[in-house]
Amino acid sequence: MDLSHINDQGRARMVDVSDKEETNREAIAKGYVYMKRETLDRINEGTMKKGDVLSVSQVAGIMGAKSTASIIPMCHPIMLSGCDISFKLDFEYNRVEIISTVKNSGQTGVEMEALTAVVVAGLTIYDMCKAIDKEMIISDVMLIRKTGGKSGIFQREQI
Amino acid sequence: MDLSHINDQGRARMVDVSDKEETNREAIAKGYVYMKRETLDRINEGTMKKGDVLSVSQVAGIMGAKSTASIIPMCHPIMLSGCDISFKLDFEYNRVEIISTVKNSGQTGVEMEALTAVVVAGLTIYDMCKAIDKEMIISDVMLIRKTGGKSGIFQREQI
Amino acid sequence: MDLSHINDQGRARMVDVSDKEETNREAIAKGYVYMKRETLDRINEGTMKKGDVLSVSQVAGIMGAKSTASIIPMCHPIMLSGCDISFKLDFEYNRVEIISTVKNSGQTGVEMEALTAVVVAGLTIYDMCKAIDKEMIISDVMLIRKTGGKSGIFQREQI
Amino acid sequence: MDLSHINDQGRARMVDVSDKEETNREAIAKGYVYMKRETLDRINEGTMKKGDVLSVSQVAGIMGAKSTASIIPMCHPIMLSGCDISFKLDFEYNRVEIISTVKNSGQTGVEMEALTAVVVAGLTIYDMCKAIDKEMIISDVMLIRKTGGKSGIFQREQI
Amino acid sequence: MDLSHINDQGRARMVDVSDKEETNREAIAKGYVYMKRETLDRINEGTMKKGDVLSVSQVAGIMGAKSTASIIPMCHPIMLSGCDISFKLDFEYNRVEIISTVKNSGQTGVEMEALTAVVVAGLTIYDMCKAIDKEMIISDVMLIRKTGGKSGIFQREQI
Amino acid sequence: MDLSHINDQGRARMVDVSDKEETNREAIAKGYVYMKRETLDRINEGTMKKGDVLSVSQVAGIMGAKSTASIIPMCHPIMLSGCDISFKLDFEYNRVEIISTVKNSGQTGVEMEALTAVVVAGLTIYDMCKAIDKEMIISDVMLIRKTGGKSGIFQREQI
Repeated sequence: MDLSHINDQGRARMVDVSDKEETNREAIAKGYVYMKRETLDRINEGTMKKGDVLSVSQVAGIMGAKSTASIIPMCHPIMLSGCDISFKLDFEYNRVEIISTVKNSGQTGVEMEALTAVVVAGLTIYDMCKAIDKEMIISDVMLIRKTGGKSGIFQREQI
Repeated sequence: MDLSHINDQGRARMVDVSDKEETNREAIAKGYVYMKRETLDRINEGTMKKGDVLSVSQVAGIMGAKSTASIIPMCHPIMLSGCDISFKLDFEYNRVEIISTVKNSGQTGVEMEALTAVVVAGLTIYDMCKAIDKEMIISDVMLIRKTGGKSGIFQREQI
Repeated sequence: MDLSHINDQGRARMVDVSDKEETNREAIAKGYVYMKRETLDRINEGTMKKGDVLSVSQVAGIMGAKSTASIIPMCHPIMLSGCDISFKLDFEYNRVEIISTVKNSGQTGVEMEALTAVVVAGLTIYDMCKAIDKEMIISDVMLIRKTGGKSGIFQREQI
Repeated sequence: MDLSHINDQGRARMVDVSDKEETNREAIAKGYVYMKRETLDRINEGTMKKGDVLSVSQVAGIMGAKSTASIIPMCHPIMLSGCDISFKLDFEYNRVEIISTVKNSGQTGVEMEALTAVVVAGLTIYDMCKAIDKEMIISDVMLIRKTGGKSGIFQREQI
Repeated sequence: MDLSHINDQGRARMVDVSDKEETNREAIAKGYVYMKRETLDRINEGTMKKGDVLSVSQVAGIMGAKSTASIIPMCHPIMLSGCDISFKLDFEYNRVEIISTVKNSGQTGVEMEALTAVVVAGLTIYDMCKAIDKEMIISDVMLIRKTGGKSGIFQREQI
Repeated sequence: MDLSHINDQGRARMVDVSDKEETNREAIAKGYVYMKRETLDRINEGTMKKGDVLSVSQVAGIMGAKSTASIIPMCHPIMLSGCDISFKLDFEYNRVEIISTVKNSGQTGVEMEALTAVVVAGLTIYDMCKAIDKEMIISDVMLIRKTGGKSGIFQREQI
């Protein structure tokens, strides 16, 4: 199978999708931000209050999903029909789990939008907590599930 | 120590840095994209040619660094004075290592710009190879080193 | 009726519209910029000339309408099919009336685009006249009419 | 006094500020969103919870302030050194008061950034509550105070 | 025939295309960057290597095509379904020929996107070579061919 | 002399300018849009009226200058301190001459901003007149003069 992003001159192009069917599509991605226990505790306290770190992270992630095509060079512009992000504080591994769900109806899928939502949400958590923890790590950002389109359902085996 | 991003009403704000000194600052971040061996081989073949995946990834990462303040809500706008990205293909762990170096002269540092460069470069690798490998993982995105500013040098112990 | 922008975790999301019908939609919004009489006179003189304040304001308003989804966090990206702005100089109340009309064909309406066009046009008038009048006020920005979509016609009673 | 935005050909230009002094500057703006009592009640309930309307509005307002120069045609790009927004729920007049404070150090002031923060925050409140109240009005958006720069302090008399 | 961009008040508007048919459309544009022979030689050497000037120019041109509607005031937002750029080094006239091909399916065509791709690609060549040649000239940027839509095929006679 | 945009791995980078002096800089660029005589006549008639093609073109060119660093990959972000554009209708050659003047105070110059202003202004003229003339050509876009910075004055010999 070919890297379809490469043109005849061996350079990158935005793939022509004009013959692909327009279907309802969905992609789910996840990722983690690992941090010190104290940092996680601070975020947890915040979730009791109105202006918490995760609210800002969520707004950033959703706006990030919308700007995917202007950030990733060969991505097609896409009309998102929905975007949601959820968080889980995991005190066993001292990390925040970020899960994004993105939907569209169009000729290309929304994997990149779902992944971009996760990393932008993660970067925002880093930004808002870096005054107390510069060693946070954004990790295990991956596509979980993708439906719609010719290639059918992709479901990642959980690790 | 406080989460300085929170205002009196408990909501997020962009911290006032007008009293901080203007110094030369630098931040180095790194991250990895894990993939199938075949995918890494394909990228490796590409580096022999002009239009390779990593060239596009690098352009994306540098442009990503420049757009950090419009992606991350509480980030200050910053005049980057330089930005570079390097890649290492690692055939032992089947991954691409991405290292970004960002410089500026100003009242706030460029950690977020360096981290954003890494994740945008990583997302671009994913985008350009996803036709052959949807299971790639962006991982271990972290700040390596930061100099300049009142808080002095931050140097992460290598793992 | 619920605030549909809130997800299960109580945080904001971009509402899923993938089941909504694709129809022709239109929204009309208006607003005013109140100012000193001298400022209004100056704008009026300008409309006789080619480079007037209102021409710049109009370009800004139209471009603002197009960038609504990148400014308003939970707004869906929308393909505008048309956008127009008209002005009326009102010497009785010393104000400029701004009326925007925005059209699209899609799954969500263009109220936000019409309102954004009005406020960006208003801000631009402020910007271009602030050297002579810092006390201008942008006021009474409201949706006048909205057609298309399941909720049918909304027509505001005039005040 | 002249409209300095007009060039020799009678067209708009971005004024040359290269001879202006670089000083610390601050601008404060305010505005209101008028709404039904029920809508205000709903927002008020939300402020008890983490994902409230005002948190999203605040993030939007701060990001709006940062993008002022790309929204308002003749605005100079500015490095904001700080931005904050506060809200007051006013049950007497059934409105939300929005106050923004923006700081920078540079050759031009931040009035436009403060005003843009207010209107974008207001538009976001509209967007998130429009499912239950399409008749909200954004009103009385004005500059309250401005310090720094050659023209000195501007302080609006309260109305 | 009228300049359809002008509204009743004699000001610019974004033309209403909601009654136009949605068809597959394509536009091809070209342009040249003239330069010193030594500059062309340097670019030519680069094409042998991975990080050449033309690869960066191509990424820029494709991203430029995607941002056309935010750069050109009265342009409709458009969902590109494909974009490609090719280069030819012309040692007879000491110039680089840039040809862009843009496709979409929608109510308006992609001429502006194709032209924007060419000029952004050209500006990027200038930027990356200006350290050795400030006298480069971007010239002869024109639409070559356009298909789809009511107005039918436009084919420019070659010069 | 080297192409300074190339890093050790042979890929593109944003050059480090942190050791360059901060000086007042200015760049002047020009370009032409060639068109049918009838098209030029139509533009000329418009300049008598308020909403003319050239006013929109000028706003677009100035906004384009401000967005140069987000369009051209390796361009440094720059705080423009001024930007102006002038037009001359040339009935001998049936063309519009566009001249841009851009100023800043910083570590890098504004050649790219001046050139970007010209091409964006030219593209906007094309966009607004393409309904009556698809054969317009944007040509002879070049840097005329550049002052400030270590490399001193660049003055192009007129052709």
